[in-house]
Amino acid sequence: MPTDVLLGVLSLVAHAAIAMTAALAAGRRSMDWVGVALLGCVTALGGGSARDVLLGHYPLSWVANPWLLALTAGAALATIALARVVHHLRVVFLILDAIGLVVFTITGCQVALQMNQPLPIVIVAGLITGCVGGVIRDMLCNDIPLLFRAELYASVSVVTGAVYVGALHAGLGVHAAPLVAFVLGLTFRLLAIRYKWEMPKFVYTRDLH
Amino acid sequence: MPTDVLLGVLSLVAHAAIAMTAALAAGRRSMDWVGVALLGCVTALGGGSARDVLLGHYPLSWVANPWLLALTAGAALATIALARVVHHLRVVFLILDAIGLVVFTITGCQVALQMNQPLPIVIVAGLITGCVGGVIRDMLCNDIPLLFRAELYASVSVVTGAVYVGALHAGLGVHAAPLVAFVLGLTFRLLAIRYKWEMPKFVYTRDLH
Amino acid sequence: MPTDVLLGVLSLVAHAAIAMTAALAAGRRSMDWVGVALLGCVTALGGGSARDVLLGHYPLSWVANPWLLALTAGAALATIALARVVHHLRVVFLILDAIGLVVFTITGCQVALQMNQPLPIVIVAGLITGCVGGVIRDMLCNDIPLLFRAELYASVSVVTGAVYVGALHAGLGVHAAPLVAFVLGLTFRLLAIRYKWEMPKFVYTRDLH
Repeated sequence: MPTDVLLGVLSLVAHAAIAMTAALAAGRRSMDWVGVALLGCVTALGGGSARDVLLGHYPLSWVANPWLLALTAGAALATIALARVVHHLRVVFLILDAIGLVVFTITGCQVALQMNQPLPIVIVAGLITGCVGGVIRDMLCNDIPLLFRAELYASVSVVTGAVYVGALHAGLGVHAAPLVAFVLGLTFRLLAIRYKWEMPKFVYTRDLH
Repeated sequence: MPTDVLLGVLSLVAHAAIAMTAALAAGRRSMDWVGVALLGCVTALGGGSARDVLLGHYPLSWVANPWLLALTAGAALATIALARVVHHLRVVFLILDAIGLVVFTITGCQVALQMNQPLPIVIVAGLITGCVGGVIRDMLCNDIPLLFRAELYASVSVVTGAVYVGALHAGLGVHAAPLVAFVLGLTFRLLAIRYKWEMPKFVYTRDLH
Repeated sequence: MPTDVLLGVLSLVAHAAIAMTAALAAGRRSMDWVGVALLGCVTALGGGSARDVLLGHYPLSWVANPWLLALTAGAALATIALARVVHHLRVVFLILDAIGLVVFTITGCQVALQMNQPLPIVIVAGLITGCVGGVIRDMLCNDIPLLFRAELYASVSVVTGAVYVGALHAGLGVHAAPLVAFVLGLTFRLLAIRYKWEMPKFVYTRDLH
């Protein structure tokens, strides 16, 4: 069906794009080529893997479809060759990363819905799928995860999941609902990047211990 | 039953208290509000989740009871509003954190016992439930986990689990055994804090590579 | 059977050796004795645990055989007593660590083969079993994992797994195939250490954000 095919294609593009941004993070840490390929795989596949392990949903996507490993490792390694032109594509990467966040969130929600999980868990499954890959990437790069510090990243994921679930409940059907969630979520993310929307921060300077 | 109800209430209090101390850790790293809520959830629910994933015990507690997500995220967010008074409550938090360690340990042992795991695994399940949340919190905050460096934290968990299992084997019954383990474990932890008991450290300064 | 027994013995030696090198890493971070024991267990058992959780292969090895916890914790704690002589054993440790990498890789492949996983997953299962323990160790020590930065560590694991699978397909049988993979993999690793073979690095200095 059109929407399924569209989401499927976007999901593949998103996997590759997320692996490529992970490769750039690896390059900033001077990792070797194996590290680049591994960080690409782990970042692109880590969110879905975390969701599946936490929900007990086996087999994991890359175990059932091992070519996902080749796709993400290949995209990461290709980034090494493309490094000189990549910074001209900055805006393209930001948009692809935003598409990845929204598409991964929707597919995460769909997995939880197929498992008949309650609604809060459906939205959390979307959040985990969309965001945990980046958290693992940041931890492996020895950074405090960006997710916890800046940008409406997790918020976009939660809103996308809520819109998707809401649209399904409003009777929009399995084709229209993901499309509405995709358009609204992507718009929200791109506006947040464009206008540098940020969550307020909690700054606490006393020691508890 | 009285003991069950007491442990259940203490477990809720412990979830909230652990989420609140995680929120303070998030504040020391200037995380945003979403980061505060996420770190609260992950710290309070991470130990039990790790235990369940490692033992193959599905569904996880927060998947079966999604309100645990609201409780822990809410407690973490409430900490932002309470930040100005929190440092007056330092002793209260230390006691609540100690209660959390001991109660989580006992509930972790109970899950493994229900799965008919061998005794060492019962005690390890308690240790994971009591301690892994804090390890994840420290890793997300880019610290070397406190558990590996200081305080009788893991030791209290192992002793609590051993007392619990020993009390059951001594025939104390499902009401008395957790109560004995709770009182002894909490006393041990509070004495360790009060008198700054510490494990000896292993200091090795040569490079292997 | 001879090969099974040999691999079994080598696997035990490898568990102990990996726990001991983890203990030295803990000592360089001045962890306390509990931290040393925990880091030894997690490093030696983490790779196999990650593989089992990702493949849904329960129970985990240390849950089925809790004495593995005693072996690895004991080896880590013994390292404290042996710290003064350990640096004289530098070469022994490098060889034991190489044996560990190769043996863990082969046993990881065997688990995936028993689960009838496709060939790429068999090799990835070997890679995870051989390498993830060290990644967890480095993350708990607040380092960027060595695996991503230096040495032909992951590469040795992939080559060992590929040789093992290839030897099985070439009809070498369940005794000869692991032996061939062990000898070739170990030789590759020791040559890589001896001649300081390295992967090229990807250095990227521009900011994406």
